[in-house]
Amino acid sequence: MLIGIDAGGTRTRAYCADATGRPVGTGDSGPGNALGVRPEALVRHLSEAMAAAVPAGMRGRGAVVAAGFAGGGYGRGRDAAVACLARALEELGIEAAALEVYGDAEVAFASGPGAPADGLVLIAGTGATAARISGRRSAQIVDGHGWLLGDEGSGFWLGREAVRAALWALDGRGPHSLLVERVLELAAPGKDRDDRPLLRDVIADWAYSRPPAALAALSPLVVGTAAEGDQVALGLLDDAADELADKLRVLGARRGELLVATGGLIAPGGPLAGRLAVRVESMGLRLTAVRDGGAGAVALAGLLTH
Amino acid sequence: MLIGIDAGGTRTRAYCADATGRPVGTGDSGPGNALGVRPEALVRHLSEAMAAAVPAGMRGRGAVVAAGFAGGGYGRGRDAAVACLARALEELGIEAAALEVYGDAEVAFASGPGAPADGLVLIAGTGATAARISGRRSAQIVDGHGWLLGDEGSGFWLGREAVRAALWALDGRGPHSLLVERVLELAAPGKDRDDRPLLRDVIADWAYSRPPAALAALSPLVVGTAAEGDQVALGLLDDAADELADKLRVLGARRGELLVATGGLIAPGGPLAGRLAVRVESMGLRLTAVRDGGAGAVALAGLLTH
Repeated sequence: MLIGIDAGGTRTRAYCADATGRPVGTGDSGPGNALGVRPEALVRHLSEAMAAAVPAGMRGRGAVVAAGFAGGGYGRGRDAAVACLARALEELGIEAAALEVYGDAEVAFASGPGAPADGLVLIAGTGATAARISGRRSAQIVDGHGWLLGDEGSGFWLGREAVRAALWALDGRGPHSLLVERVLELAAPGKDRDDRPLLRDVIADWAYSRPPAALAALSPLVVGTAAEGDQVALGLLDDAADELADKLRVLGARRGELLVATGGLIAPGGPLAGRLAVRVESMGLRLTAVRDGGAGAVALAGLLTH
Repeated sequence: MLIGIDAGGTRTRAYCADATGRPVGTGDSGPGNALGVRPEALVRHLSEAMAAAVPAGMRGRGAVVAAGFAGGGYGRGRDAAVACLARALEELGIEAAALEVYGDAEVAFASGPGAPADGLVLIAGTGATAARISGRRSAQIVDGHGWLLGDEGSGFWLGREAVRAALWALDGRGPHSLLVERVLELAAPGKDRDDRPLLRDVIADWAYSRPPAALAALSPLVVGTAAEGDQVALGLLDDAADELADKLRVLGARRGELLVATGGLIAPGGPLAGRLAVRVESMGLRLTAVRDGGAGAVALAGLLTH
């Protein structure tokens, strides 16, 4: 039996397959960032996801487990991930014949066709990270530094830039566009549009009273106003795609190599998928988009038995 | 008796003067941001600062009080400032014959020669704000949006950019300069300089485990390495001065009008004072630097009696 786990900042997903890789079950639970989620919660989320994925009758048999964790590719995050995964397996009565822990970029990349060993991976959801994968392990990582220090081009970044566009309009530094109006409707509903000092205060109260990463919830608003032709929103989407492409340039992208893309912004149908495709094409690359790292985790589990 | 108060994000300062403006006493206490400090603490800080500034024998007489608060120029912040100031005065047994509350930009500007009524003010310390003052009140404010949404060119911004320079070097996006080395010494002392994944984790842990504005504490490190000729640090100081000058451009700075500057970065001897002076000179302006808003608060108190 193969168990693949994709544990990210938003949720933990478990996939169970038979020895040939044929799906048997899946399960979901809460956040699984190995550096950001407390151990008790991480154990619970792993246990809940696996409980739903692994049929009760198949537990106890020797399972092969591969798990990718946001923040879990290295050092303290990896140690936490290994420890919590072991506890969750024990709780469920699953004895692992083999177990390996990866970073989220590694399982995302392995979700590419044929569980590839070498190439590039780009993740753009709430955060943004690019990595060069060599021998199925991250050889170089660009960004993923989070809301305070980086993640340019991510969903958080788009949402924050939308709020900044509103503040710049209030400062007299930018136009009062449709995007600005939509941000004001959300953050300062019913307030007098001509009372700039009031609007400044209300927006600050609104933005600073929640976790910074929650600004990612505004990215659909940027996408929506861009679809209505708003120039500020269109410019932000272009800038975001530029920022993501730049991360691949830093990795020394080579013509023709595999590029696996995942995350809400660039997965199939994602709002930046088209813009990013154009940019990477000029670099001699083609996007291979995957929904998440689940298939890669199962594939890596399969490889552990060889 | 005149009481002037300059209540900022870092500390609250009270100044007492006789009716002619001659200094009688001064006092200091903790943070006084009207939007960021809880009422009980704000009352305490105001009370402590005034208790030290106003001789016991002079209390009870009709005082004229003018107070400038970070976050206190408008709306909810102003309401909080007025209420807390009234409570602090009552605690000390001081009956105010007149009382007025201002924003920090307004008292800083009034600290210019002759308690001027019209012109520009630029504040650059932990945060960064510019304002056009008309009739001693802010007519337009640019920035001051804080660490999540703005304050480009501030002490926080310099410190954050220093950490970003270190992360960019680890990503392979920028040079391993002296500034980067100094950030690593501070945030990752004794760690293997060749273990990039480890350093990424250690820096993230370090930066995210404290309040974001605490990154302003790194700005002296940028100034120090710039003095040693580090190109990355020199570039950041130039960028910060550009960002500050841009805020004045947005305000439609006119040749020859008064520009009052204050805050640790641009007050007399401040690390950006020279760079900023060059930039505003090309705009037809000259920096009039003041140490803080205390003198302006006392001057505004004096004007309340006329």
